[in-house]
Amino acid sequence: MPTTDPQKPAATDKPSVLRETDDDARKLARVLLRSARYVALAVVDPQTGFPSVSRVVLGTDVDGVPVILVSGLSAHTLALDADPRCSLMAGEPGKGDPLAHPRLTVQCLAERIRRDDPMHHRLRTRFLARHPKTRLYIDFPDFGFFRLEPQAASLNGGFGRAYAMPGTDLVIRFGDSPIWVDDANQALQDLALAVPAAATYIAVHLYGVKTGNWRFCGVDAAGIDLICGDKLLRHEFATPILIKSHLINHISKIANIAYPIP
Amino acid sequence: MPTTDPQKPAATDKPSVLRETDDDARKLARVLLRSARYVALAVVDPQTGFPSVSRVVLGTDVDGVPVILVSGLSAHTLALDADPRCSLMAGEPGKGDPLAHPRLTVQCLAERIRRDDPMHHRLRTRFLARHPKTRLYIDFPDFGFFRLEPQAASLNGGFGRAYAMPGTDLVIRFGDSPIWVDDANQALQDLALAVPAAATYIAVHLYGVKTGNWRFCGVDAAGIDLICGDKLLRHEFATPILIKSHLINHISKIANIAYPIP
Repeated sequence: MPTTDPQKPAATDKPSVLRETDDDARKLARVLLRSARYVALAVVDPQTGFPSVSRVVLGTDVDGVPVILVSGLSAHTLALDADPRCSLMAGEPGKGDPLAHPRLTVQCLAERIRRDDPMHHRLRTRFLARHPKTRLYIDFPDFGFFRLEPQAASLNGGFGRAYAMPGTDLVIRFGDSPIWVDDANQALQDLALAVPAAATYIAVHLYGVKTGNWRFCGVDAAGIDLICGDKLLRHEFATPILIKSHLINHISKIANIAYPIP
Repeated sequence: MPTTDPQKPAATDKPSVLRETDDDARKLARVLLRSARYVALAVVDPQTGFPSVSRVVLGTDVDGVPVILVSGLSAHTLALDADPRCSLMAGEPGKGDPLAHPRLTVQCLAERIRRDDPMHHRLRTRFLARHPKTRLYIDFPDFGFFRLEPQAASLNGGFGRAYAMPGTDLVIRFGDSPIWVDDANQALQDLALAVPAAATYIAVHLYGVKTGNWRFCGVDAAGIDLICGDKLLRHEFATPILIKSHLINHISKIANIAYPIP
């Protein structure tokens, strides 16, 4: 039976060949989501009931929840205000067969984060670090954030490698205390100031990029985000890090630097 | 007002800055759709009512209607069988700001084309020419085609260039007579056999690709499709062509060849 042999090509997610979700699949899903600069976002058109899919730039909150910045006048924003059910797809094809490249579908519930919400400042800071060009319009009165709370996800890791997982597999627990977030940000900024080449070292030696002027653009309890122009990398920690000195030790180790400098 | 000035960046389609749809916009929309190797496809999840977005490879029928080949066991196929309302997004970002690159959203009604449908042979032939690797599974019993009939479209041509158009703007009229389709295919095959370099000449001289081993992979009354590995080009005719000799004359002219060879 071709449809149940995982060695055979399968063009689409197939319930019949769903594999058991393991840590590798969960990690691939997290990395796909957290390293996406943009995603396809599907919403329900409030006038016709049709699904409608468009492109949005993506950020993440400190708990791993995807964040979008959208205009209040756009069709997808009007749709999300009317019905918070949405879906995103992360993971872009490279060369060759587009279905051989991994992609992640996440069904989410959208929650608008208004300007007077205590979370707003954090979202704005993180989004700007990841998408510096949005500075041009991030503070326009009609622009705003939604957190897209993952409800369920479907990973297609390439032909015959389909997995389902609950939305909670994509959420970072215990990492959103304001103290930890401030600590982590400060630690990362201090380290980048003292050793500007640290991010590039990690990108080159751990992730095989050729070179570039990489910098850190985000940190949470599960990993760090690195950026260089329009390239984005996600480094996931093996286990969550919730203590500033542990964060410094880990990054110092993977960036091969003696830090703090004596 | 930043949101009504088309010179200002806008992150999303904005009804308030919709431009009047002109021939250039219609052509850009058609080219985006007809040159897409794959699209993001949004369907309605029949179990949850959530929209769900995944990746599918794309073909077109001779009337320009998008065609997908999917497994009957996949989540999106189950969804389309339950509710034919769907949406696709075509147009991939290149380098730089992902929102600066044009993309097209099309809301469609999906129609399953079964194996005993008179259209099936045509869809299969066209799909194989465009996606040769699908030969591995195109005839699996659980795989099948849907035509996605365009109902309405939304073009975002980059910052501040948003347009709406009816689905009919993406459909080719008068081009699906079996005689014309067979004639056109035969003419293109004969020409390619006589002048193998014709497709590459068009790709290089009209579309600025560096080089490659291009070939024709589709023809309809509105244009021709050219393929080279995982690259796809759409050449749209200025006006529809429905006569074999006119097609030969046009391609001979743009490929700079004297044909038919005396």
